[in-house]
Amino acid sequence: MSAALVLQSDFGMADGAVSAMYGVALGVSPSLRVFDLTHEIPVYDIWEASYRLIQTLAYWPAGTVFVSVVDPGVGSDRLSVAVRTSGGQYVITPDNGTLTHTKRMMGIEEARVIDESVNRLAGSSASYTFHGRDVFAYTGARLASGVIDFVQVGPAIDPEGLIELPVMESTCDGESATGSIDVLDVRFGSVWTNIPRTQFEQLGVAYGDRVEVCISDGTRTVYRNLLTYAHSFADVYVGEPLVYANSLDCMAVAINQGSFAKAYGIGTGAGWKLSLTKVAR
Amino acid sequence: MSAALVLQSDFGMADGAVSAMYGVALGVSPSLRVFDLTHEIPVYDIWEASYRLIQTLAYWPAGTVFVSVVDPGVGSDRLSVAVRTSGGQYVITPDNGTLTHTKRMMGIEEARVIDESVNRLAGSSASYTFHGRDVFAYTGARLASGVIDFVQVGPAIDPEGLIELPVMESTCDGESATGSIDVLDVRFGSVWTNIPRTQFEQLGVAYGDRVEVCISDGTRTVYRNLLTYAHSFADVYVGEPLVYANSLDCMAVAINQGSFAKAYGIGTGAGWKLSLTKVAR
Amino acid sequence: MSAALVLQSDFGMADGAVSAMYGVALGVSPSLRVFDLTHEIPVYDIWEASYRLIQTLAYWPAGTVFVSVVDPGVGSDRLSVAVRTSGGQYVITPDNGTLTHTKRMMGIEEARVIDESVNRLAGSSASYTFHGRDVFAYTGARLASGVIDFVQVGPAIDPEGLIELPVMESTCDGESATGSIDVLDVRFGSVWTNIPRTQFEQLGVAYGDRVEVCISDGTRTVYRNLLTYAHSFADVYVGEPLVYANSLDCMAVAINQGSFAKAYGIGTGAGWKLSLTKVAR
Repeated sequence: MSAALVLQSDFGMADGAVSAMYGVALGVSPSLRVFDLTHEIPVYDIWEASYRLIQTLAYWPAGTVFVSVVDPGVGSDRLSVAVRTSGGQYVITPDNGTLTHTKRMMGIEEARVIDESVNRLAGSSASYTFHGRDVFAYTGARLASGVIDFVQVGPAIDPEGLIELPVMESTCDGESATGSIDVLDVRFGSVWTNIPRTQFEQLGVAYGDRVEVCISDGTRTVYRNLLTYAHSFADVYVGEPLVYANSLDCMAVAINQGSFAKAYGIGTGAGWKLSLTKVAR
Repeated sequence: MSAALVLQSDFGMADGAVSAMYGVALGVSPSLRVFDLTHEIPVYDIWEASYRLIQTLAYWPAGTVFVSVVDPGVGSDRLSVAVRTSGGQYVITPDNGTLTHTKRMMGIEEARVIDESVNRLAGSSASYTFHGRDVFAYTGARLASGVIDFVQVGPAIDPEGLIELPVMESTCDGESATGSIDVLDVRFGSVWTNIPRTQFEQLGVAYGDRVEVCISDGTRTVYRNLLTYAHSFADVYVGEPLVYANSLDCMAVAINQGSFAKAYGIGTGAGWKLSLTKVAR
Repeated sequence: MSAALVLQSDFGMADGAVSAMYGVALGVSPSLRVFDLTHEIPVYDIWEASYRLIQTLAYWPAGTVFVSVVDPGVGSDRLSVAVRTSGGQYVITPDNGTLTHTKRMMGIEEARVIDESVNRLAGSSASYTFHGRDVFAYTGARLASGVIDFVQVGPAIDPEGLIELPVMESTCDGESATGSIDVLDVRFGSVWTNIPRTQFEQLGVAYGDRVEVCISDGTRTVYRNLLTYAHSFADVYVGEPLVYANSLDCMAVAINQGSFAKAYGIGTGAGWKLSLTKVAR
């Protein structure tokens, strides 16, 4: 049985781009199983593409082939690569930082540059703007269906050389744990940091304890308050904010059935920092 | 062959949450067929989740397993349940009112509480906020693929005890049929009531007849006018309003190629009432 | 193995309409493979439905069955048809102009009217507003799964008689190539014309040359400037506009990593015209 092929992009679902990728994949192997991670990555947002991969990769079986196409450099000399993670999943993507989180948090065992002289849809050589269809979906389908094996993708490169976006490391000094705001859980307004629960727990905070939450945007303090450290939303009142470990086992802040991000205008990316400080009981 | 697994949630498709559920399901059974009902239920809107289930359940084969995760009480003591409908489909969901319409309009033959000591993704016990992935998708995949049968979901409970949201019954007094506005057909602006066509037809109105439509929001009359009872939009002029039986065989009001809901500011839920009154020919 | 069934509509994914179509299709054949082109066609926008079909059809294997339901005339006497393209794909749709681009650019070899006396979901005859579910998805599933062959869809009609929306032909006079703006690549703001690259190249413009781009909305000139003809976005600076051949091999205009359409308020449809004029080197 073929492995699954999982597609991610910033194309949206409003036009035919994603469906053309599906068609190309099924042209390679009619019985191939194709799925979507998301196609609603904000346009050109490589960071978020990287984050959504790490949010999902580990939940898919080894052998699954992910194709991620957020590709502001399409047609430039950026590389087209395929990697095998330490979990045995594959990711095929432009080498532009999309693998940042996968490389740091999961590990990349092997990387190859796609040899477009063989791994490119026949008849597409005059098309320079849709590598998602002509190169990435096509190569992903060939790998997932077993038409080629990983070696046949193209020549090996050193995974260490893959491009990484700058990342702020989370820290813990015994009193406070501090990290960056990696992403918002957009629909629910939760604020997700890169502070692992295991790091936060070095502070000795127990469920039900109060924690001082301080959020800064790099120029000013945007939020500072004492919140309950809870298992889940239902442990606090409706409308009450809380600190909790999210579904990736990192620390997060939310309002039960409200939007913390909207309430306080919280953003993500460069400069945004969140710290959690132990409070005397 | 496995039954189909159909997922519904209020997660949206912009992040990796739904894809993680898919991955978990395929981890249970790589050949399982997984589909989406919708993931655009407004956040925390249990009523709409309940409605979208009844809109689709009957069109899927017996044995299909639906998983619906609109779960404002995640982490509370609300039950996680699985039910078998009178049509032979299964629904797995938090017991929070999501089964309101299914119970009333279709009938529930058997209900069980999920035994999380066996039906929970291995390694997820420290995660308290994503039961959609760790419990519901996992259990749904096990049931759909035949890894467990319905009895192995967990102990039986009385379906009568399942939580129901308050519902206003439609009525008919010989002159008028009156009901609630259950939902809007959002993109097209149609207004869908809970008045069955069969109940409306007790008024003796024929296709082509005029009907008095009166809509109130609980405090004032929002709309009152005489409309044609038509088979379909094309029976009236473009831009003309009409009364018709919708695809669930309940009464609805719309503007042909316009938005009735936007034109008159129609809403849904508590207080919103619509009546249809026979007019002398 | 069954052919794939691919669905397109203006229903959106927020309610249960698309899922009901899936359920009906799987009721016909539980192992059928069903996919989405898009369900975000703007409501009633037949032109865009027609365009999205031609954007994807050729990338799917022969035998694939497309169902497209943008159907402002549901319930009128408009025909329900099924056609076979010159590429061997099938399209099932109301005959309302949805086949305009397929007929002109790909070619239609055979057309049939759906015989609803046999090709209609059992028990649906009292439903007049959801042919997408009751007729189109049902018939498409029967054809894709081999329950019926193409002849059994219904009586043949002359493909020449299929309804076409008005189209402005692109022209080239040796100095300029002129065409209509068919569609926007919404998320990226690119402006897609109906001028084939092969026609534009009759002007003798080489990659890297400057081209005068003139856009008019039918009443005034909206944009006029000299742009570089590039292979791809990455050939110009970030923020620079360019002329290029899009993924359908027609001429397009964009801003590298910006939105040309938003920058200059470009629209589509009647009156919108774009010309590309050779500039002396």
